[in-house]
Amino acid sequence: MSAIPTRVDLPPVRIIGTGLIGTSIGLALRRVGVDPLLQDQSTTAMALARDLGAGRMGPRLGYDDEGTEEPGLVIVAIPPDITPRIVADALERWPGAVVTDVASVKGVVLADLVRLGAPLERYVGSHPMAGRERSGAIAARPDLFQGRAWVICVEEETHEASIALIERLAHAVGAAVTRLTATEHDAAVAAVSHVPQVAASLVAARLEDLTEDAVGLAGQGVRDVTRIAASEPSLWTQILAGNAAAVRDVLAVVRDDLSALVDALGELGDGLDRDAPGARAVLAKAIADGNAGRARIPGKHGAAPTLYTIVSVVVGDAPGELARLLADIGEAGVNLEDMRLDHGLGLPFGIADISVLPSAAGHLEDALTAKGWQLHG
Amino acid sequence: MSAIPTRVDLPPVRIIGTGLIGTSIGLALRRVGVDPLLQDQSTTAMALARDLGAGRMGPRLGYDDEGTEEPGLVIVAIPPDITPRIVADALERWPGAVVTDVASVKGVVLADLVRLGAPLERYVGSHPMAGRERSGAIAARPDLFQGRAWVICVEEETHEASIALIERLAHAVGAAVTRLTATEHDAAVAAVSHVPQVAASLVAARLEDLTEDAVGLAGQGVRDVTRIAASEPSLWTQILAGNAAAVRDVLAVVRDDLSALVDALGELGDGLDRDAPGARAVLAKAIADGNAGRARIPGKHGAAPTLYTIVSVVVGDAPGELARLLADIGEAGVNLEDMRLDHGLGLPFGIADISVLPSAAGHLEDALTAKGWQLHG
Repeated sequence: MSAIPTRVDLPPVRIIGTGLIGTSIGLALRRVGVDPLLQDQSTTAMALARDLGAGRMGPRLGYDDEGTEEPGLVIVAIPPDITPRIVADALERWPGAVVTDVASVKGVVLADLVRLGAPLERYVGSHPMAGRERSGAIAARPDLFQGRAWVICVEEETHEASIALIERLAHAVGAAVTRLTATEHDAAVAAVSHVPQVAASLVAARLEDLTEDAVGLAGQGVRDVTRIAASEPSLWTQILAGNAAAVRDVLAVVRDDLSALVDALGELGDGLDRDAPGARAVLAKAIADGNAGRARIPGKHGAAPTLYTIVSVVVGDAPGELARLLADIGEAGVNLEDMRLDHGLGLPFGIADISVLPSAAGHLEDALTAKGWQLHG
Repeated sequence: MSAIPTRVDLPPVRIIGTGLIGTSIGLALRRVGVDPLLQDQSTTAMALARDLGAGRMGPRLGYDDEGTEEPGLVIVAIPPDITPRIVADALERWPGAVVTDVASVKGVVLADLVRLGAPLERYVGSHPMAGRERSGAIAARPDLFQGRAWVICVEEETHEASIALIERLAHAVGAAVTRLTATEHDAAVAAVSHVPQVAASLVAARLEDLTEDAVGLAGQGVRDVTRIAASEPSLWTQILAGNAAAVRDVLAVVRDDLSALVDALGELGDGLDRDAPGARAVLAKAIADGNAGRARIPGKHGAAPTLYTIVSVVVGDAPGELARLLADIGEAGVNLEDMRLDHGLGLPFGIADISVLPSAAGHLEDALTAKGWQLHG
């Protein structure tokens, strides 16, 4: 089930920062035979990470580390605002080491390193795109990066050997590597992560004033759009502020598109009895542009999006019912590509939306009907 | 598994319009012993609905129906732009009948009926909140409304007997009734359906210009936010135009919120090294307001939202693996509240996120670990 090798050959690894990400990297590396040296500003945090099995305890960060093993690979996993200073220190202290950091914004870190005159050949910015709702070493898991994207930021100055080493690190913890420049990375995460978060929050905020009855009409659409609106405000303030310029650029376009829509809807007045072809064209273009953008999102396994066929089945609300359904799907020899369970309003059953390859849908419907399942329109 | 009665007593029913909704209502009513008379502008469409089992064929719409059964309940299921005229005709022609329509916007229909001087005591606007991606009688299903919301628009003039009859109709087809005024309905669907659609489309449109590598970073968040961006432009142009005033009101607030965020992000400049507490407060408030709005969405069975605990499990990408997992969950006696399957990037396994009541999570984790499942961070 795992694509992770059993043993990986890396130079001596030092992990600076034993929070969620640093400790998880340590745990993952221990699984493949690498035993990192851990450093943190807090001795307690370091000891906890060691006790969890993330590596050996090094000297407290900022204190003398004379006589400790010289690293060939340094992973800086501390808050973004202090990252550039520590990365620059590491590059200076260990001239034979490649240094990476895991801050979720890369442009500001790189700009600071340039300002500090750091040797960029041996620096590779990383963004392992994994996280949990909880933070700290106690939430760490060795499989945190398994199957997740790990962005490696490659600039003109970066040496190929430095890149290769960080790629080996990413693969060692089970991640899939994507190479981007820092600027490309920040623009990409603005569009695929930060702007969706803002949109979800703004749409969700509009639900606050609705009556109980009105909000009771919420269907799967608004649930999906606003799911991530439950995110933590202080965390997201940091993230958005850290990538302010790139997020602003994308959001400004969204705001302009939105203004055009508001104007068009105003022109349409109260709707049906007004003919406003220009305004209708604005609406149609907004939806069509959304179609085109949505189609860019890769499907399963990074492949081009496949249009799955959804088979909907009525499922009773009792333990074991869904298991029985899935067993029947497995017996039919059909591979389930995705599945959503949607509970009805005030009724003791749910609807399971099962995505399968279009070629398998007919056979599956027949097989399920034969087993007594009720298909849903 | 079904809350639908086996037999329902309704006065003679006439369904005008044999598209998806009209035919589905006919099919659902036939299941509970009601045999509607069907009318449409197209004889072919009428005959198809009859052949599918939705009711008896009536005279072609607009032609003489002298001698046909006088209805006690008329359901107008035709495009919104011609709905008011047909509803007014029905109210005039059959003075003993209650008339409802199923247009997805209610304010413009009501305004037109007032303008036409129609007797509003016997009119009840309906919005059965169900639909399919396909349209037409051929896509109709008797269970289309099962477990879905059916909004009934109640105005000052509406007679209680008229309301009671349409409620019986909604219950007869398996739907859950929500009473609103037409204005409340339009504002509600603007916020819970039309504005989320616009937001999803605008966010998705920003993905179009990304490189393949950048868009490859798309995770579950942006996938959820943009799922409905795949919707049909011509259909959504009609829907948005039909509810233009209410959608505009909500979108204008979103635009103002967005403008404030764009300004705040501009003030933060390139982020980390700038201190702008006012700007940060704007960001934090937007996310916090989103939290509050999101919390308004009812959970399962219309109850207040429960914070489920998510247990994440690594699932191999082979037929039967998920069935085995669900069987093990069932055996553990745990009721699965929701489930998402998330496929990794380029790796032969997925992560199943299983929502359960917090009290059941620990037991479930133990049970699954004992069965050899790998939990995921």
